[in-house]
Parts: sequence; C-alpha cells; structure tokens
Amino acid sequence: MKKLWGGRFVKSAEEWVDEFGASISFDQELVKEDIEGSLAHVTMLGKCDILSVEEVEKIKNGLSTLLEKAKKNELQFSVAQEDIHLNLEKMLIDEIGPVGGKLHTGRSRNDQVATDMHLYLRNQVDEIIGLVKEVQGAIVSQAEQHVETIVPGYTHLQRAQPISFAHHLLAYHSMFERDAERLSDSMKRINLSPLGAGALAGTTFAIDRHYSAELLGFDGIYENSIDAVSDRDFIVEFLSNCSLVMMHLSRFCEELILWSSQEFQFVEIDDAFATGSSIMPQKKNPDMAELIRGKTGRVYGNLFGLLTVLKGTPLAYNKDMQEDKEGMFDTVQTIKGSLKIFAGMISTLKVKTEVMAEAVKKDFSNATELADYLASKGLPFRDAHEVVGKLVLTCIERGIYLLDLSMEDYKEASDLFSEDIYEVLLPTNAVGRRNSAGGTGFDQVRKALAKIKENN
Amino acid sequence: MKKLWGGRFVKSAEEWVDEFGASISFDQELVKEDIEGSLAHVTMLGKCDILSVEEVEKIKNGLSTLLEKAKKNELQFSVAQEDIHLNLEKMLIDEIGPVGGKLHTGRSRNDQVATDMHLYLRNQVDEIIGLVKEVQGAIVSQAEQHVETIVPGYTHLQRAQPISFAHHLLAYHSMFERDAERLSDSMKRINLSPLGAGALAGTTFAIDRHYSAELLGFDGIYENSIDAVSDRDFIVEFLSNCSLVMMHLSRFCEELILWSSQEFQFVEIDDAFATGSSIMPQKKNPDMAELIRGKTGRVYGNLFGLLTVLKGTPLAYNKDMQEDKEGMFDTVQTIKGSLKIFAGMISTLKVKTEVMAEAVKKDFSNATELADYLASKGLPFRDAHEVVGKLVLTCIERGIYLLDLSMEDYKEASDLFSEDIYEVLLPTNAVGRRNSAGGTGFDQVRKALAKIKENN
Amino acid sequence: MKKLWGGRFVKSAEEWVDEFGASISFDQELVKEDIEGSLAHVTMLGKCDILSVEEVEKIKNGLSTLLEKAKKNELQFSVAQEDIHLNLEKMLIDEIGPVGGKLHTGRSRNDQVATDMHLYLRNQVDEIIGLVKEVQGAIVSQAEQHVETIVPGYTHLQRAQPISFAHHLLAYHSMFERDAERLSDSMKRINLSPLGAGALAGTTFAIDRHYSAELLGFDGIYENSIDAVSDRDFIVEFLSNCSLVMMHLSRFCEELILWSSQEFQFVEIDDAFATGSSIMPQKKNPDMAELIRGKTGRVYGNLFGLLTVLKGTPLAYNKDMQEDKEGMFDTVQTIKGSLKIFAGMISTLKVKTEVMAEAVKKDFSNATELADYLASKGLPFRDAHEVVGKLVLTCIERGIYLLDLSMEDYKEASDLFSEDIYEVLLPTNAVGRRNSAGGTGFDQVRKALAKIKENN
Amino acid sequence: MKKLWGGRFVKSAEEWVDEFGASISFDQELVKEDIEGSLAHVTMLGKCDILSVEEVEKIKNGLSTLLEKAKKNELQFSVAQEDIHLNLEKMLIDEIGPVGGKLHTGRSRNDQVATDMHLYLRNQVDEIIGLVKEVQGAIVSQAEQHVETIVPGYTHLQRAQPISFAHHLLAYHSMFERDAERLSDSMKRINLSPLGAGALAGTTFAIDRHYSAELLGFDGIYENSIDAVSDRDFIVEFLSNCSLVMMHLSRFCEELILWSSQEFQFVEIDDAFATGSSIMPQKKNPDMAELIRGKTGRVYGNLFGLLTVLKGTPLAYNKDMQEDKEGMFDTVQTIKGSLKIFAGMISTLKVKTEVMAEAVKKDFSNATELADYLASKGLPFRDAHEVVGKLVLTCIERGIYLLDLSMEDYKEASDLFSEDIYEVLLPTNAVGRRNSAGGTGFDQVRKALAKIKENN
Repeated sequence: MKKLWGGRFVKSAEEWVDEFGASISFDQELVKEDIEGSLAHVTMLGKCDILSVEEVEKIKNGLSTLLEKAKKNELQFSVAQEDIHLNLEKMLIDEIGPVGGKLHTGRSRNDQVATDMHLYLRNQVDEIIGLVKEVQGAIVSQAEQHVETIVPGYTHLQRAQPISFAHHLLAYHSMFERDAERLSDSMKRINLSPLGAGALAGTTFAIDRHYSAELLGFDGIYENSIDAVSDRDFIVEFLSNCSLVMMHLSRFCEELILWSSQEFQFVEIDDAFATGSSIMPQKKNPDMAELIRGKTGRVYGNLFGLLTVLKGTPLAYNKDMQEDKEGMFDTVQTIKGSLKIFAGMISTLKVKTEVMAEAVKKDFSNATELADYLASKGLPFRDAHEVVGKLVLTCIERGIYLLDLSMEDYKEASDLFSEDIYEVLLPTNAVGRRNSAGGTGFDQVRKALAKIKENN
Repeated sequence: MKKLWGGRFVKSAEEWVDEFGASISFDQELVKEDIEGSLAHVTMLGKCDILSVEEVEKIKNGLSTLLEKAKKNELQFSVAQEDIHLNLEKMLIDEIGPVGGKLHTGRSRNDQVATDMHLYLRNQVDEIIGLVKEVQGAIVSQAEQHVETIVPGYTHLQRAQPISFAHHLLAYHSMFERDAERLSDSMKRINLSPLGAGALAGTTFAIDRHYSAELLGFDGIYENSIDAVSDRDFIVEFLSNCSLVMMHLSRFCEELILWSSQEFQFVEIDDAFATGSSIMPQKKNPDMAELIRGKTGRVYGNLFGLLTVLKGTPLAYNKDMQEDKEGMFDTVQTIKGSLKIFAGMISTLKVKTEVMAEAVKKDFSNATELADYLASKGLPFRDAHEVVGKLVLTCIERGIYLLDLSMEDYKEASDLFSEDIYEVLLPTNAVGRRNSAGGTGFDQVRKALAKIKENN
Repeated sequence: MKKLWGGRFVKSAEEWVDEFGASISFDQELVKEDIEGSLAHVTMLGKCDILSVEEVEKIKNGLSTLLEKAKKNELQFSVAQEDIHLNLEKMLIDEIGPVGGKLHTGRSRNDQVATDMHLYLRNQVDEIIGLVKEVQGAIVSQAEQHVETIVPGYTHLQRAQPISFAHHLLAYHSMFERDAERLSDSMKRINLSPLGAGALAGTTFAIDRHYSAELLGFDGIYENSIDAVSDRDFIVEFLSNCSLVMMHLSRFCEELILWSSQEFQFVEIDDAFATGSSIMPQKKNPDMAELIRGKTGRVYGNLFGLLTVLKGTPLAYNKDMQEDKEGMFDTVQTIKGSLKIFAGMISTLKVKTEVMAEAVKKDFSNATELADYLASKGLPFRDAHEVVGKLVLTCIERGIYLLDLSMEDYKEASDLFSEDIYEVLLPTNAVGRRNSAGGTGFDQVRKALAKIKENN
Repeated sequence: MKKLWGGRFVKSAEEWVDEFGASISFDQELVKEDIEGSLAHVTMLGKCDILSVEEVEKIKNGLSTLLEKAKKNELQFSVAQEDIHLNLEKMLIDEIGPVGGKLHTGRSRNDQVATDMHLYLRNQVDEIIGLVKEVQGAIVSQAEQHVETIVPGYTHLQRAQPISFAHHLLAYHSMFERDAERLSDSMKRINLSPLGAGALAGTTFAIDRHYSAELLGFDGIYENSIDAVSDRDFIVEFLSNCSLVMMHLSRFCEELILWSSQEFQFVEIDDAFATGSSIMPQKKNPDMAELIRGKTGRVYGNLFGLLTVLKGTPLAYNKDMQEDKEGMFDTVQTIKGSLKIFAGMISTLKVKTEVMAEAVKKDFSNATELADYLASKGLPFRDAHEVVGKLVLTCIERGIYLLDLSMEDYKEASDLFSEDIYEVLLPTNAVGRRNSAGGTGFDQVRKALAKIKENN
C-alpha cells in the first residue's frame, strides 16, 4: 500500500521492515489521548481562523465518532499505517473525506506523540498516587491494631531491640509518603504541553499554543519547540520514581516472605494471595510477595533501557525515541498491579501476635536497656557496652536470658545495677520508654498515627 | 474454578490476583517445547516401567494431538490454569481422561519449566547464530567490492589516517565473529537437561534422566537437582551475549546514520530501510538504523532486569523467577528482527566511492605518513611528530593541504625530506603501505577476506 | 588491636577481613560532617541535661580541635577503627580522656552515619545546582550572540528545517532548568534530620531531636526512627537526578563532537579543551566532550548499583548499605567536574557562522516552507506534502536546490505557486516566520532570552 | 609544561582540565603490564631490524630499570604526563636519553593501552579462577562432613522436602563450576594481542606482530587493526562473568544471613567474619555476608556503566573508552576480596546439625512422600496430591505432624495407605530414597562428591 510520506520514494518498503518499524502494536494504548489531543488542536485551529468553522465542525464530529468507537474497542488498526497517528488520520479521512487531512495543519507527528505521552502519563501518575495512598491506608489500618504488639526489631537480620509492630509498619508508610511526594513533584514536568512545537521549530501558522494547552488541562507549555519534541526526561523521572516504589515494595515483600516462613511465623498471608505446589501438598507459598519482589527487576530494567536509549542522541527527534513507550506502558501496568495486590495483601494479613510475643521473650534484644541503664548511672557508654556484652556471653553459655540472671550475677558485673533492672528489662518497658520523637515508644507511635490521620 | 493445587486451601483466589500471578499470557510461547519435553518424559517413564505400555501410548497420542493443534494455533489457553504446564495438563486430561494425570509422575513444574526454557533457548541461539552469520555474509559481500575504496579512518570522530573501506567493514566482521563464538560457547551451559530434578531434590521414582535428556537432544544433564531448578545463569549469559551483539549493531548503526547525513554522504541507505517525514518532504530518514540503535536499550534493560531478579534470592525455586521469561522472549524477538533488518540494510547499501575519494583528498589524514617518513630516516618519533604538527599548522593558516606545500617548505621544516614525499603522501600509498599483519594495506585486507572465506 | 564492640567476641578478626569491611578509606570524606553532627548532638545533650555543662564543654572543645585538624588534613585515620565514626571517637578520647565516650549517649552509628550523609548531600546538591546554573549562563551568553545565526535543524540527523542557532542552544537551557528544578525538589527529602533515631527504635534518653536538627540547619526531622536509619532513597533520587544531567551533557557533547568534525565544521572547541594525538600530528580531538559523554556510563552505573543494593533488603540497617557511599562520592566528583569543564567549553566555543550559513543554502531544509505555502492556499497538507516531495526529487536528479527551480517547474507541479515563493524559500524568512510560541522565529527567541534574564 | 602532542596547539591546556582528562591516577595500575609490553615491542623492533641492536639494548636496559623501580613502588607519576604511557616514556628518556623516543616506533597509544589491558585481565582472570576454585574447595570440605546431615529444603522460603545439607552446598559448587568455565572460555578473547595495530590502521614499519604476541604469551593476534584498538568486548564479558559470580555469592550470602538468624540458627559464622554493634552488646552481625551481598550492586553497576559507554560510539578509538578502566579495576578488587573472604567464611562455618535435625522433625516437608506413596500405588498424582493436602490441613488444625496421625486417620483418607507409611515418612528415608541422578539421595551425593574429587 501507499504510505502517506511516500512521495519522495521510489521503492515501497517491504512488509517485514514495516512490522519492525511500526509502533501501532503498542502505541494504540494512546488512542484516547491522541484523539483528545486532536480535538483540542482542531478547536484551536478554528479559534485562530486557520480552519473554517465548518471544517472544524466536520473534523470534530469525525473525531468524536472515532473516540466513541475507541471506547468500545471497535477500531481496527493496521501495520500499514505504522502508528496510532497515521491510523487515526486515515480513519478520519475515511469517515469525513479529504477535509480530515487539514487536521494536521500546524502540527507534526513529533509534537503530537509528545502530547499524547504527556496526557497519558498525567492520568496514570494520578492513578498511581491514588494506589500508593491505598497501600498507605492498608498499612495504617494494620498499624492501628498493633500499637502495643511487640516484635523484635532487626538490624543485620539479627534481633536488635524490641519495637512496636505498628512502628515497624509505619516506617513503610514514610517511604510511600516520599513516593507520593516525588510523583506529585514530577507533575510539574509532566503536565506541560508540547503541542504546536511542530517537527522541531514551531510553525508558520498563527496558532495559539496556550489555548490548546488549556483545553487539554495542561498547566503550561514547553518554552522551546526543540526541547518540546525531544524531551523524554519526564518518562525517565517517572521510571525512576517507580523504581523507588518497587524497591520499597521489594523490601516489604522480603519481610512478608521471611515472616511467613516456618521459622518466623509472625504473619499468615491470606489464601487469596498465596498458592500451593503442584508436587508438595503442604506448601503455602507467598507467591504474590515473591512476584512483586521479582517485578522490581523489570522496572529497574525499563529505567535503564530508556537511559541507554537517550544517551548520546543528538537533537531533535530520532527514531530511537520510539523505544520510550513499551517500557513506560509495562511499568505502568506493573506498578498498578503490584500496588493493588499489595494493598489487598496487607489489608488481609493475619498478624500472629502471640508468636511475636513469644519471640521477644526468648532473645537478647533487651540488652541495650542494660547498657542505657548503666550509661544513665554515669558509666561511659562504651564501658557499659562492654559490661553488657559479657553478661550476654554468660547467658549464652548457660543457655538462659538476661531476665534469668540473678542479682548476684549483675552485681558482680557492675556495682551500678540494682533490683529495678528486672523491670527495665521487660520488653514492654523497653519499647515504652523509647519516647524520643519518632521513636518506637507507644506514645510516639500513637502520635504518629494521629498525625497521619490529621493530614488526610 | 478449582485449582489443581487447591486441596490445602480454604478460600479461592480472586480473579485479579490470578491474572497478576498467571504466566499463561506469555509462557504459551513455550507450548511446543513443553509438549516435546512431556513426550520425552513419558517415553522415559515407559522405558523405566514406571507407567505401563498402554498408559504411555495413550499419553503420547494425547500429546501428539495437542502438538498438532499447537502448530495450527488451535489451542485455547485459560488464565484459570495459570501457566502453560497446567493448561496443557488439563487439555490432556480432557483429551484422554484421568490417565493424563500420570504424566506428572516423577516430575515437578520446577524441572518442567526449566526444561522448556533450555529447549527454547537452544533452538533460538542456533537461529541467532545463523542470523549473525548472515550479517557477516552481507559485510563480506560489501567488503569484497571495496578493498580499494579509500575512506578517511577516524578516531575521536576526527580524520586520522586513510583506510580501505573494506578494512573498516571487516572490523565489524571481527566483532560479530566474537559474538558467534560467545553464543556457541554458551551452548555448553544451555544444552543441558534439568528434567527429573523434581521440585528441588530429585524423585523417589527410578527414572532415567540420561535417557530423557538424550531423547531431547541435550548434551548432558544437570549434576545437582537443586541447581537444576534454580539456575537461570544460562539466560543471564544469553542476555549478556545479546547485549554485546546489540552494542555492536548500535556502533555500526551510528556510523550508518553519520554516513547518511548531508555532511558525510558516504552511503545511501536503500529506500526499503528508510522513511520519510510527515511534515518535511525532502527527508530520507535512516529509521531502521536509528531504531536498532535505540533497541540496544531494551536488551540492556532486560539483562539488568534479570540480574536484579536473581540478586539475593535463596535456593531453590522462588516465584520471582517467573520474571525470567518476558525479558528473554523480548530479547529473542528484538535481536532476531534487528539482525535480519541489518543484514538487509548492509546488503543493499549504496556506497558512494566518489564522495569518499574526494573526502580523502581534502584532509590531513596523510600526516602520519610524514611522521613515519621522518622516523624511518632516524628522527626519534616524538621529534618527527612535532615537525609535522608545525607543517599542518602552516597548511591550515594558508588554507592548503600537505600535498600543496612546496619542497622549500619541507626542507625548511627538516633536512630529511626529499622529493619522494609527494608519492608518500598519496592516500592510496598511505593505505597500501600499512601492510603489518591485520593492517589496512590492500594485501592485508585481501588476505583477511581470503581467510574468512576459507573458514566458511 | 581491641575493637570497641569486641566485648562479646572470643576471637579477634583477621586483618584482611578488617580491611575488606572497613569503610574508613572512603568515608573519611565525611569527616567535617561527622564532627559537625557531633557538635550539634552534644550541644543538644547539654541543653536536655543529659550531660553536664562541663562535660559538654570538654567534648565541644575536643571536637573543635579535631575539626581544625581535619581542615588542615592533619588527622591520621586507621583501618583498625573501621570507620569515620570510631576513628573520630578514639581521637576524641585520646584528646580529652574517657569523657569523650559520653558523646555517643543517645546516638547510634546508624543515625550518625545517616546524618552525615544528609549533611554532605545537602551541601553538594547546593553546589551542583550552582554549577548547572553556570552552564546555563554560558549557554545564554552564546545564545545572545547567535539569535540570527541560522543553522540547519536536524531530526534523524537529517536536515529538517533551518533554525536560529540560539534556539538550538536554548533547548539545552530548558533541559538544565528541569535538572535544577529536580535537584531543588529533592532538597525536601535530603534536608531532614535522622539524628536521634538511635540504632532503629529511638532512645530512652530525653533528647530533643528538633533542637539538634535546627542546629544543623535541617528543615525538619524524620518522622519514624526505623525509616530514618534505613532510608537511602534520597541518594537514589540524587543519582537519578545526576543521571539526567549527564544524559543531557552526553547529548550536547555528541553534538559538539559532530560539529567539530571535518564534515560539519560548525564550531571549533577551544584548545584548552581539546588534545592532540601521539601519532597523528594533524589531529585536534574534542577529548573533553568525549570524556564527559563517556562518564555518563559511570553515573548510570552508580544509580543501578545502589538500586541493586537496596532491592529486597529487610529493615532496618544492613551492612549492605555501607555500599551507598562510594558511588555517591564518585557521582559528586564526576558531575561537578563535568559541569565545570562543560561551562568552560561552551563559554570559549568558537561558532563558525559562515560555515553554518553556507550549509543552510545547500540543502532542502526549506522544503517545509513550500508545503506550508500550499497548505495555506487551501491544499490539504497531505497533498501539499506529496507535491513538494516530487519537487525535491526533481532537484536531486538535476543536482540543484529548490531556489534554483524555475517558475515553470513550480507551475507544472501546482497552479497554487506564484512568484512570492522565492522569497518564502529564503532561510532567514523560513526561520523568521516560525513565530508560534516557543518557535524558532527571531522574535520568539529574543522573548525567550528576555524571559530567562528576567527570572535570574 | 609542554605536552608531547603539543606541536599543533597554540594555547596550553589549563591544569584543571588536565586533571579531569588525565588517567594517570588510575591507569598506573597497569605499570608492570605497560613495561612488559614495551619490552616485547622493542625486542621485536630489534628482531625486525627497525631499531639497531644497540638502540634495543639501551631501551631494554632503561625499561628494566623502570620495572625494578615499579616493583619497589619508587616511580613518581605526574598528571602533567596524562597517562601511564607518557609518564613511562618520559621516565625512559630521562633515564637513557633521546633514544628512548624510538620505543614508540610502529606503535600508538591506542594499541599500547589495549595491550596493557589484555595482559592485565589475563593475569587477573587466572587469579580469579583460582579463587573460585578455593571457594569450591571450601564447599566440598563442608559437604564431605554433611552428607547425612538433613536439613529442610526450601522453595518459596517454605519448607518443601528434606534434603542432605551436602546436596544443598553442592548446588553452589555447580554454580561456581559454571563461573570458572565461563571465565576460562573468555580467555580465548582476552589472550589476544592488539600490539602493532597502530592508531587504527596498522603501521608502515615491517613489524612482526606474531613475534611480539608470542613474547607476551598471547595465544594469537587481533585479525583487524581497527577492531584491535576499539574492542572492549573482552572487558564487558569479564564484567558480565563477574556479575554472575557476585550474583551466586549474593544468593549464598542471603542464605548464610537467614541461617545465622535467631529464627533459623542453622549455622554460626566464625567470629572472624562477624561484627558487633556499637549500641547493642548482644548482636553478632553476619557483616561479611551482608557486605558481599551488597557489593553485587557495584559489579552490576560497573557492567552497566561500560555497556553505556560503548553504546553508539563510532569506530575507532574515542576518548569515552578511557572510562573502561576504573570499573574494571574496581571489579577485580571487589571480586577477589569477596571470593577470598567467602572461602574463609565457608571453611570456618559451624554447622549446627542438631538444630537442623530438630527442624526437619517439626514440619510437613515429608508430605511429598505420602503423595509419591499413593501415586506409586496407582492413584493419579493429582488425586494423591489432594488427599495429602487434606491430611496436612487436619494436622495443622490439631497442631500435630504427619507422623503423629493414626492409622485410622490414614485409612479414612485413602484405602491405599498401610503401616509402612510411618517408615516412609522418616526424614532420613525421605532423603535417602531420592536416588534419581543428581538427586539428594545419600548415594547420589556421595557419587557427586567422588566425581568432583576425580576431576581435580
């Protein structure tokens, strides 16, 4: 078939090259955005008297018909028309005749595709922020039930100090808060209109870029036409922000997997998010947590893919940039799915408070209490640390815990100890007294929860 | 619907989790390999008297029917059956009744999917090596026509020394030779059978892993069952090898793009591989070269995606590993398309020898000849270099080239110069005399071509 | 030697393990920040009556002495003390006696190192924003001189439409503007205090985190102690922002390299930023542009490295996180050097306006003018495009340009052409009339420059 | 100061540009290789009568003196001489006079640096293969002691089937075997000589590349001079191979960290490889395992960095390629340190066999035995799986394990059960009977160990 840009060419491109070069198989994802962009463009052309009222009317009607069909999935795209723009243009001409060709006045595919991407990402980022907030909501719900649930806090995957389980959960709330903030910040750079930048240099038609931008709900326009068509920073920024979200999910998933193991047994993931084994009937695998953790790789890969594409490419548009789309679409789908599943998994998570309580009793995570105790009585912290280190070693040798040591044992280690240490060593006291701002003390955790609720 | 592994579960998983977790949307790519693996497995079960002759016959017939349907794209896969294995198992049971369930004896999905991947990649790597050789063939054909075509050789994108264009092309032949070699080396690690490793520990059935491996054309078996099901190194190695292929293509494409520019005009890409502009009628864009260069990012991204997935995952199988497939499939498709297009683009490339010849005349790329000339007359190379540097500066100031300097100019610069330098400075002599092994001298280039042909 | 945390241990670690694990070889970069953090911490301990006035005084004096020595590079660090924190603590105790041990009251190395990193990055990001602005300044200076310098505008490295060289330069100004904006946005997440979060859970001492944060010039504190010590998002965000800066530099460098080639000759890089060849005396290599382009890889690599480190690590601090530093330091040094060199290279760039002018005359980049001309006379754009495509082909066959075609040629192609087209085709008119907002029209470029100056 | 390539230049480069561009701060790592390459080169120049016997003798003596000094770290490098090559050349001239300048005859820095890198990497890869084998040796030693130590085998971090601990360890042996194999394969592409390729085109001197290659112990020469100087594939391949090694280490380290936790307690890492906490005296952190896991990021980053550098760079040498070195050096140091530490950590690992034994008793990892049992009695596997799934659920509800169920319970679930199932369920039997090739059965594990020893 004949190509729209074929005038200068003597040979027609072979079909398999067409397929390799065509983007319609994936950029049809932008069908709605492309039509909306065209509607705004033609409305602007009318307002600026570049097209007649009649022409504008015809084109808008044609576009509206296509939009209706698009929503019903009734459009049939063809590789022969390469991409979403040429497909829709041909459909429009088929629908309303040659006047459809006037839609492209004062516009190039370069600014057109950039406009589509900005519209698309604006909508998606809005949705993703919403899903991040859903995950945060699930975290808060669990946290509210577990302010006084004590669990070992870990560093180096070694038990460090007992903490409120709610406090642990709220650490993730903070991470997702930053994610939402970062995504919001990125809107400044996403919600700008490249429309009217032409191929790279602007256009000779007396268009009104601010007007079409306004019609599309953009906050402003790109200041430089070359930048407008060759900028893909906003997609890199998006992929980077999503990489951070996935990284946070991967950390939380790692913990859910650990906690679901026979060895920890701190939580039970709801059956809806776990699966069995084709060969081992006793298994209940935390599949969704593993899968989300694994999907981190895909999003990182998409980020690095695009950074590679852009490295060292001269201005303005180069065909390399067609490679900006699939990684973006894949990331959008991955992150939306991951957040949705994750919110469900947290909401339905069964927390085994009794196992946690038992765990806290059987370890040395209260050792810091002793060191702080001695330090507060004036022993330099480093010396206190050493005294307690030896007491722990004594316990390990005897197979007991710190609460099991006699007063004599303590006195022998340091004169500064007195009877109140048994009180001090209780996990609930250990947690409760960590009341520095942002600490795990119950009051602090309640304050944190109150502050979160207040901000919503 | 009821899941095959659902015995232990009280709730049924919700549909949207199913979709997120299911792999059938992409692992159906493995349908042929999965059936072939099953055919070998059941044949082995029969030989080892684990299943009866009759059972084996029934199952093989059922599988053959499915294979026929698969080849005709008549199989209907369902998300309810998660993956390719469970889909096919259900189809088999629907086809031949409950005896189909015996196919899974002595096998787990873990070794089954690993087997599929090894079979798949073996076949693909064979094909890819063939395509690399096609590209090499196209390069050799062009090189044979251009042994005596002289072109500026560049370093730092500055003209350095004149070279044979064939010599330049053969540099890429060497790169692709290494690529083919690396892919061949990787076959040692790809063409091994994990079948029979079970879920992770082997099986209690008296199976014969060597026999099923032989039936499938594998060179050997995995020595350790845990490694067999959790190894994805062979995919990482594949993605890394493909990253190098793409990197080479990206370098060659960069040159094709430069050479096609108005400024260089060294080559003209065939219309079949170029496209026009929707707004600028004069444009002939080297789209395919740009697109292949851009697709480098995607393959790098797939490599880093999988490396991320595998980082820090404990033994043996984890659901994260399901993420090994899409990046691999995408890479296979990308590299096959890129190599195919590239071979066509090189074969049909029009080399503008007259432009190249003109370019060589109008530069200083013969300056090294002068320095070598002086060095061969005994001047330490560093001093020779300095003398020539000054002569070049003189030329630039006067707007002439080295061949335009008078004998007086030369004598003034150094007594060592005599009349023969004008001969020495001719590009064809400059190229011809670089006859050290592997150099650009015409004899060397002809030898290199002869050697390549001999090895094929 | 004896380690500070050695109380619990029976064996002493071997030296080579010490070296592998020690961070002092690189974290000494944080010496100033570490002392400043300690000064604020001890001041706060005094204010909260946790240490006595006398103790605080002694410690502050000791720290001030160390700070003085640090500024003079007089401190001798030792691998035996693993890291910057323990090195300084030992030095402090050596300086003022055992009271130095009290500095660590209510603090852990976990919150201490996090504090150092936040202080460090805040200072560096400030400096980097300044350097980005220097690059922008250099761009503006060049742009002001070249508003009416016409150069071919490229897409696909094919000449597309003539543009103002200033307009091209200002596209980069826009990119760096986004970079500065992104770095500024990131300050919200960098300039927060983790100090007082303890090992992970807060502390039992009645410290005042807001006070120490204020002393250090932080805008606020981390809300959750676990998050405070395990968050490295701000470094990932920094590395991502720097990756974008480097990507922009790599694109600009690619253009400088192209423009410096014999084939383009649009610019000459100042000798200070170019180098020669050890073997080819005529070479003037754009080394700095190449090197900066190459350094993009290093920064991308650092980003990917840290994302990998963090993937799937459970809360809270893990030793893996020690790997956050070297990539950050390397990125800071790379980006500062690159921006500094780049600003100098642009400031001193010699623009060859006459070569640019000649280039514009000898191409078809004015073809769009014809198409727009026909479209403005009512021909649907797609038809206009085809007419012009054929005219270009005619020119190529005859070896002439559009301005060389006769009025008959034009009339034959379309009745809509009349004599004014020769005016329309002049490059200066082609550029001048692209006066849509953000376009290359001279008025637009002047407006853009005025706006930039107004905002500074 | 005056630069060696300064003849053509009017301005001298400013110091800070020099520092940015100079590589001497890191390429001095190549000092030994550079001198060895020069010794071979000059010997060859003598053999080919390009230099006189006397000249060769003088230069060799000078180089030998420098080599001696280099070994004693007595050479003082200077940024003014940019790189290792110019530094050494100047030192040589200082040592033996102007004749030193003749060393560079028939050679360029481009082939010289490539030669250095090949020599360097050949030596390092040899050493690294040796360290991989050390790690394998440590694994084998542990495995030999633990053939009959039973431990839960995991998939999805859920207990799956009991296995021999030796079998688990040997899975890693297989991974490292592939690593060693891959590194060996890469030698084909590393141990080739680029020397004599000149700047890019070969040389006019009648050199003998095969002779200098032989002197340096290379297996052959690069066939194409342009490829010889611009190829960095061998470094990418090295970084990729190292990424796989690090990935394997990261997986093993993850397991060591899990096993060292209070919850698993399967192993105790020797004190030499663990550290304490500055605030929590009871902690024994598996620092080295965490650090090695973290260092995976750095190596991945180096790989991605170099792939980025090379993407889209035209032939031949570009300054970007200077960026090939630091990532390579860093990777060499990282992987050597990691392997060394890791070998020590495995050798000294204390395996807590009694904890493992206890673990195996208290889980359902023997459930597959029941399913296999039923399947071997003719029940289709899927049905067997369902029966056992229900029995597991019964146990969980009653808080008991499969060995605790009564014969009635079993009979009720299926008629096929009889008294022998209690024998079947014993972990030692479950492991012992998995005697398919490569399985965990004790005989198989002993065979695997014997085979490994035989191959060494």
